[in-house]
Amino acid sequence: MTGGDGLLRDAVAARERPLVEGLSRWVGIPSVSTDPERAGDVAASAAFLRDYALACGMTRAEVWETSGHPAVFAERLVDPRLPTVLVYGHHDVQPVDPEAEWDLAPFVPLERDGQLLGRGTADDKGHILMHLEAVRGILDARGQLPINLKLIAEGEEEDGSEHFEELVRAHRADLAADVAVVSDTGMLAEDLPALTVGLRGLAYWELGVQTAETDLHSGVYGGAVMNPLAVLSEMLAGLHDRHGRVTVRGFYDAVRELSAEERRQLGAVPFDEAGFLAPVGAAAGGEEGFSTMERRTIRPTLEICGIWGGYQGLGAKTVIPARAWAKLSSRLVPDQTAPQVTEAVGTHLRSVAPPGVRVDFRLIHDGPFVLTPTDHPAVRLAAEAVAAVWGREPVYIREGGSIPPVATLAGELGLPCVLFGVGLPEDRIHAPNERVVLAQLFRGMQAVAGMWDLYAAAGVEGLSPRPD
Amino acid sequence: MTGGDGLLRDAVAARERPLVEGLSRWVGIPSVSTDPERAGDVAASAAFLRDYALACGMTRAEVWETSGHPAVFAERLVDPRLPTVLVYGHHDVQPVDPEAEWDLAPFVPLERDGQLLGRGTADDKGHILMHLEAVRGILDARGQLPINLKLIAEGEEEDGSEHFEELVRAHRADLAADVAVVSDTGMLAEDLPALTVGLRGLAYWELGVQTAETDLHSGVYGGAVMNPLAVLSEMLAGLHDRHGRVTVRGFYDAVRELSAEERRQLGAVPFDEAGFLAPVGAAAGGEEGFSTMERRTIRPTLEICGIWGGYQGLGAKTVIPARAWAKLSSRLVPDQTAPQVTEAVGTHLRSVAPPGVRVDFRLIHDGPFVLTPTDHPAVRLAAEAVAAVWGREPVYIREGGSIPPVATLAGELGLPCVLFGVGLPEDRIHAPNERVVLAQLFRGMQAVAGMWDLYAAAGVEGLSPRPD
Repeated sequence: MTGGDGLLRDAVAARERPLVEGLSRWVGIPSVSTDPERAGDVAASAAFLRDYALACGMTRAEVWETSGHPAVFAERLVDPRLPTVLVYGHHDVQPVDPEAEWDLAPFVPLERDGQLLGRGTADDKGHILMHLEAVRGILDARGQLPINLKLIAEGEEEDGSEHFEELVRAHRADLAADVAVVSDTGMLAEDLPALTVGLRGLAYWELGVQTAETDLHSGVYGGAVMNPLAVLSEMLAGLHDRHGRVTVRGFYDAVRELSAEERRQLGAVPFDEAGFLAPVGAAAGGEEGFSTMERRTIRPTLEICGIWGGYQGLGAKTVIPARAWAKLSSRLVPDQTAPQVTEAVGTHLRSVAPPGVRVDFRLIHDGPFVLTPTDHPAVRLAAEAVAAVWGREPVYIREGGSIPPVATLAGELGLPCVLFGVGLPEDRIHAPNERVVLAQLFRGMQAVAGMWDLYAAAGVEGLSPRPD
Repeated sequence: MTGGDGLLRDAVAARERPLVEGLSRWVGIPSVSTDPERAGDVAASAAFLRDYALACGMTRAEVWETSGHPAVFAERLVDPRLPTVLVYGHHDVQPVDPEAEWDLAPFVPLERDGQLLGRGTADDKGHILMHLEAVRGILDARGQLPINLKLIAEGEEEDGSEHFEELVRAHRADLAADVAVVSDTGMLAEDLPALTVGLRGLAYWELGVQTAETDLHSGVYGGAVMNPLAVLSEMLAGLHDRHGRVTVRGFYDAVRELSAEERRQLGAVPFDEAGFLAPVGAAAGGEEGFSTMERRTIRPTLEICGIWGGYQGLGAKTVIPARAWAKLSSRLVPDQTAPQVTEAVGTHLRSVAPPGVRVDFRLIHDGPFVLTPTDHPAVRLAAEAVAAVWGREPVYIREGGSIPPVATLAGELGLPCVLFGVGLPEDRIHAPNERVVLAQLFRGMQAVAGMWDLYAAAGVEGLSPRPD
């Protein structure tokens, strides 16, 4: 935002209530991409967004079908000599289970204490409307955008972005830009703005073990047969040693260790460990020898995301089941790759399974890690725009999560990626009672309006990295 | 059966097809006692049995309500000077999950290769109709029973027999008898008749662990917080050492070790270990230093019956859940008690849980072990009746399962309990594709008809144990 442009600021601020109202309507469409029964809702969500983009002043907006769920593309092209920014977001949302733990119906949003609660408010529908309502505000104030703006919102981010690479390849010309701004990340606190420069990668697996052809009566067979729940528990318990370190041979082989100076810089980022864990009531855990911030950003993980087998209903069923399952995932750091880690973990699991146990281990999806150079002008100018709104320089952080499409935008389109999001650690994305802090969205609108002005002033050339 | 009574034999044999047809109709009523939504079906099952008992010649038949599911009582009293036998069975059935693994609709029985498949065919509806159709056959041949016969069929055996003790206390006079014949057990093979003289007891628990207030995103928190699935896996994996022995302090304290001679006798019971495991494709497991037969009868177990937590749906949800659960059970042997073992296991689990983890461990239900003296006349005469039909002396076996109401009949009514059932190890009770071998039911009808004659000949006095 150029200093003192009160007209722009007021026009953007005037979009605050429309943003809340539009977001409330959109969250009402349960676009859960992992649930086949919700496919119609994901399609309805795409149509909603297309119409919303046109209403906000985008001049072209289309639903792009894929072999899975549809994406939405929108653009407003002003002048080919101006910089072109491609905004990335996703309009699908996480499943809601465990639904009983929500204080509200997950798709009937509730505004309370300056927050909007509901599935998708923070991740990621709020961020997309932050961009579109900023467009509306800029147009209200000035009649035109200072840059060419494109938006791509995919419908499968929460389901592994399976068709995003294919989509990008098919629409390479439409998506051409000078810089990508990805808004699907967060900050450390409301008064601590941040830009993300690193993302961990992901490998996600399903593991099944089988010890018999059929479920067995625990009285008749109990004590004399292998129990797959015990076998699975033992296999999973053995994945970490008592120092929290992964025991899988070769798991850490490709990890690029940070220098002492890099660890010092990371340690200097203000981070309130107690404030990070207390709101979610979580017990600290993890790898010895690393700080909480390091554990969740620069260190790889091997986590159990789900486990099931045997009787889980009411009462007592005296059964020894035939099978048991788990979902496992690793957060990958430079220079780990999903194939390498899959090979290492699979080999380990098969080697520790007792004879007679059938092991099925397969990769469900994956995405590479991302590291963005902090001295890129697009990053520096974004930081300037954020500082102007928050009144404080943003810190550069690494996120623990993965955004596989970011790797696609960088790899397929060769775009520098600026990761600017206004989520907070307490937003409970992927969990019950997801919420977004509305003041964060409102400041975010102002920041993107300012960012476009700074990008326009820098020009296409000025947004290119300096040659070394 | 008195030797050479061809009329009786033929009249009982004439009830074979009616038995199959009646059982097929009854199995069609899904009396799953653990499922609250099936309460109406359990009630319908009770009404069916009451009517069936009257049709078979019982002179009094009533549905007895409890605070849970109803039981059925029926009797035919002939002469107070004759011995009175109380037959026990249950008309409720196990849940059907995993339903996808059934070859048939579980409640649409299928007759195939001399077997009847369906939930409840063996456990326990087939056994109850074996008794009732034998009554019908005896009456057809002779017009009267040689003894007074009573039948009690409860509706909550698969749900812990919660109200059975209360019911027995309330109907003590109605249930008075000289001997109880419990038909809810099995034999080792079709050509190897057996009477059961020992039952393991049961303690069944639910275990919950909680590490956070809410589910967490595995990217944001992964690596820095405790994962309840990992905590649970480790707690469960630690319950046994690598020799298959339970590690819980005090778990074995009350176990009455068998003498070398007792172990020799048990080892002499023909038992085809390969034939026991192969039909269900199970991998052998258990406590080192004991045979498969010993592991499943004279040794206590600590088994995981179910486990769940986190994401179990389609695709990949990158979550670290807040909670995880397991169902655990122990098969108890003399002289273990449920309170003692609950205390030991609970203390162990709470002591191994890491700080910050909330552990909830509670007993869901339990039943004591049973040991019947093999020299009791009611047992010896039952053996004689079985030998006459199978052409071979039955062996005395211990069952690995628990039948809590047997302990109630013995404890509350002071009855000697004869455990006579015709199930087979391959009947898959509690599992998909439960079935009963019809030839076993048919021989069972002949055996009980013979048993009543032998009991009548012995008289009330002759059925009492000899004073030492």
